[in-house]
Amino acid sequence: LGKGCIQMTLIQIDNYGPWTLSLGSGREPELQILQSELYADIQRLFSSKGGFVFYGRFDNMLAITNGINVDDHKEIQERVCQRFPVTISLGIGVGEYPTEAQENATRALQTQGSSQLEERRKVLAVKGQLATVDDGFVQIAHVDVNDSTAKITDNIPVYDAFMTMLKVHEILTREFREKKALVFFAGGDNFLVVSNGLREAEYEEVLETASRQVDLELKAGVGIGRSAIEALELASQSLDRVRASKENGFIQILTAPPVENKLWRR
Amino acid sequence: LGKGCIQMTLIQIDNYGPWTLSLGSGREPELQILQSELYADIQRLFSSKGGFVFYGRFDNMLAITNGINVDDHKEIQERVCQRFPVTISLGIGVGEYPTEAQENATRALQTQGSSQLEERRKVLAVKGQLATVDDGFVQIAHVDVNDSTAKITDNIPVYDAFMTMLKVHEILTREFREKKALVFFAGGDNFLVVSNGLREAEYEEVLETASRQVDLELKAGVGIGRSAIEALELASQSLDRVRASKENGFIQILTAPPVENKLWRR
Amino acid sequence: LGKGCIQMTLIQIDNYGPWTLSLGSGREPELQILQSELYADIQRLFSSKGGFVFYGRFDNMLAITNGINVDDHKEIQERVCQRFPVTISLGIGVGEYPTEAQENATRALQTQGSSQLEERRKVLAVKGQLATVDDGFVQIAHVDVNDSTAKITDNIPVYDAFMTMLKVHEILTREFREKKALVFFAGGDNFLVVSNGLREAEYEEVLETASRQVDLELKAGVGIGRSAIEALELASQSLDRVRASKENGFIQILTAPPVENKLWRR
Amino acid sequence: LGKGCIQMTLIQIDNYGPWTLSLGSGREPELQILQSELYADIQRLFSSKGGFVFYGRFDNMLAITNGINVDDHKEIQERVCQRFPVTISLGIGVGEYPTEAQENATRALQTQGSSQLEERRKVLAVKGQLATVDDGFVQIAHVDVNDSTAKITDNIPVYDAFMTMLKVHEILTREFREKKALVFFAGGDNFLVVSNGLREAEYEEVLETASRQVDLELKAGVGIGRSAIEALELASQSLDRVRASKENGFIQILTAPPVENKLWRR
Repeated sequence: LGKGCIQMTLIQIDNYGPWTLSLGSGREPELQILQSELYADIQRLFSSKGGFVFYGRFDNMLAITNGINVDDHKEIQERVCQRFPVTISLGIGVGEYPTEAQENATRALQTQGSSQLEERRKVLAVKGQLATVDDGFVQIAHVDVNDSTAKITDNIPVYDAFMTMLKVHEILTREFREKKALVFFAGGDNFLVVSNGLREAEYEEVLETASRQVDLELKAGVGIGRSAIEALELASQSLDRVRASKENGFIQILTAPPVENKLWRR
Repeated sequence: LGKGCIQMTLIQIDNYGPWTLSLGSGREPELQILQSELYADIQRLFSSKGGFVFYGRFDNMLAITNGINVDDHKEIQERVCQRFPVTISLGIGVGEYPTEAQENATRALQTQGSSQLEERRKVLAVKGQLATVDDGFVQIAHVDVNDSTAKITDNIPVYDAFMTMLKVHEILTREFREKKALVFFAGGDNFLVVSNGLREAEYEEVLETASRQVDLELKAGVGIGRSAIEALELASQSLDRVRASKENGFIQILTAPPVENKLWRR
Repeated sequence: LGKGCIQMTLIQIDNYGPWTLSLGSGREPELQILQSELYADIQRLFSSKGGFVFYGRFDNMLAITNGINVDDHKEIQERVCQRFPVTISLGIGVGEYPTEAQENATRALQTQGSSQLEERRKVLAVKGQLATVDDGFVQIAHVDVNDSTAKITDNIPVYDAFMTMLKVHEILTREFREKKALVFFAGGDNFLVVSNGLREAEYEEVLETASRQVDLELKAGVGIGRSAIEALELASQSLDRVRASKENGFIQILTAPPVENKLWRR
Repeated sequence: LGKGCIQMTLIQIDNYGPWTLSLGSGREPELQILQSELYADIQRLFSSKGGFVFYGRFDNMLAITNGINVDDHKEIQERVCQRFPVTISLGIGVGEYPTEAQENATRALQTQGSSQLEERRKVLAVKGQLATVDDGFVQIAHVDVNDSTAKITDNIPVYDAFMTMLKVHEILTREFREKKALVFFAGGDNFLVVSNGLREAEYEEVLETASRQVDLELKAGVGIGRSAIEALELASQSLDRVRASKENGFIQILTAPPVENKLWRR
């Protein structure tokens, strides 16, 4: 695959640490509820514009935002600040690879001052030129574990299942990072890998390595689209195909036609 | 510390995999929103009765439920099933140590049939005698990273910060597991360790090991109470004390008086 | 029925008008969403303690709070203020009749200064001695329309159905008010009438008057309990009985045994 | 003003009555929470596409949906059914006047069978040709009460304030209905009047009649736009202008330029 760019947005709760302390010592359940509802709302707002948000550390989240411009970001920021007792800052960055995009998104925000400065609130900072739906693309692999219900959920203690997933997460993260791709846990036995520019053989290599280390078989459906939503939809379809015909290997890739044409032309 | 028992509940979405597939290929944002809102609601219901829920894999969550009886569980189960398009099953278990309690909670449910059986829905299964607020206790350590804003959030790229936390998570999980304690990520730079029966020296040992491996200083506030909520509140207070007077080491423990009396008597 | 007291709480969003203006001219959908979610959350908090909240004007809500003490109110107030970008003030009042209780609840708050004073925030004011679960009771009638699906929903234009319900609302409000009872719309064709001290004949009289005026048959299930939740539950059961055996008239009353004993003794 | 058309959508919870009965007698708080959250979610979905939803009877809601096509409706319906334990049916209708549009929307659905038929679920029915953003318009008046904080909120008991608003609601509904306009309560002292084709003198007439009857001064900001959201935004701006310069009467009208051009041309 040729060049192209992915746009990512860092979503940061302003001054979160000091704010949580102000809630007193009975705060923990409230904080967990707030973090979850904040994530759900932010996901709803970005995904309605074609983006997709990963919860990350909850106080710092990361979104794929190809095709979402600065005004859209401003609108989302306003809405979140109107609905919740906290404010958020946004940093937007682009890059040829996901690792680069998130670095630029972070730098955009870090140059505006510390996240704990009382006066640094509701910042919206951009590093570089944003990606339009035409000049960039998003490539996502949806990875899951074969027979995880029988082998894990119905078989081992629940916390051991958590540890297994943590292990898979850690290995995938380490291996994909070397290929400039970012791994996120998506619940159950699912992982989403933001992986612009990766080739089929590279996925195979990582999945085989990981499968060996955790003694579980992993498979992947890859989607390439103009937006996060389009890529995710194609990734789900690819994974369904792998499920349907296991003799054809453990990876399938689907590309949205407009992206295919563009990649082809270069 | 002497004997005592902790009660844990496995919360499992029934037949989740097949249900998600039925939503079609554009399902990913919806699923993330549903998982978050389901967790927020379940947290709200359990914490209003003194419990606390960890999101785990989202389709399988784990709660500390000392003092919450079978009828309370039934009521919570009903409410969740009335509010969401999915049903949940619950398995309750007790144990001297958290590892044992979660094993029993899982076994209670696993003996009722596979989580993917269409006819195994809304199960409420118990293994052993439940813990009353009088005969059990909950011990939780709240661990965080010193100066994480300056060293991590304001300093390195956001995804590298995620990887740092994943690394801390993995090390703490491995080390605490040997002491029969369970580690959960709680957002930001916070971890909660369910750790009934652990002594101060054991926390020190694990934290020192972890600190060395990730080159970051960790500290902990430990709370021991009759319920998860009471333990968490004392853990937060302990951590505030560590923050206030750093010369006194990196661990503090607070115990609710009724638990102290009981532990003393044995 | 003899004497007894009902406790009501006025829940008021602080300085709401000016705050909404600050959101700019595109605010309307956001405000509607915020109002609904605020109500849902406040309902969740009060009902988990045995109370029940009516949405009223949304910026001013009214709750039945027998058995919910000042500390409980404080806790609920804190939680709401932590979850939303607005703060709320609470006024608590008791009375032999609902009209009196809400008057006292209002007066408690109105004596603290105007709802638009920037410095009057998060007030918690009480007028008189609160009602314990033992010395008060709650009497609620659940009123609905016979055959409303066939006659209204499936039969007339939707806005005409809204107007029909508005008409029923208006007549019930006027007639019950003369008997010191408060009427609230509860969705669909349902009304809840807070009506401590009303006798069966009085319900019959009002329902017959209203039925004649709107040319629809109304029926009622009345519940008398120690808390709003208990009264509502008995009211639902009463209404189910009216539905099951229509030859026995259009009103049934069920009283929780502890309340019956107490009322009897006087 | 000349001709044009408004599009309205009836949103109906399928088989709601029987479903609520299935929840048992402790259902009331849950139902209120569900109704509010369902409304909030549906408002969020329609308003993100330029529409606006009125909660109506909660089990039957009414939305202005100019510019929202059948596929958009289908998508919204799917999302709601995925998030909640109930399903919804939608009926879409257009008309020169709001009264006509809601009649057509209702008829579209009523011809598909009773709302209580178990097999009539998730219907999406259309009566006539939908309104594009170019061939229709939306006219909304935002009405409120002068000095309502001083005269009502800070002055009279809270339930009396509810009754005052109910009275205003009832009078406005009756008077505007004769002019084929639909009135909805929007919280606080606010009413929204869907009123395509009404002239300034007609608003004046109704407002003066109502003001006299309730002994309160009413004012209105009218907005005319291509979508509900545009009309509401202009209505808010108009109302702000009335507030700013009271000597200029109690009504202002703002029209979006593209609509003005179109109305002018006819």
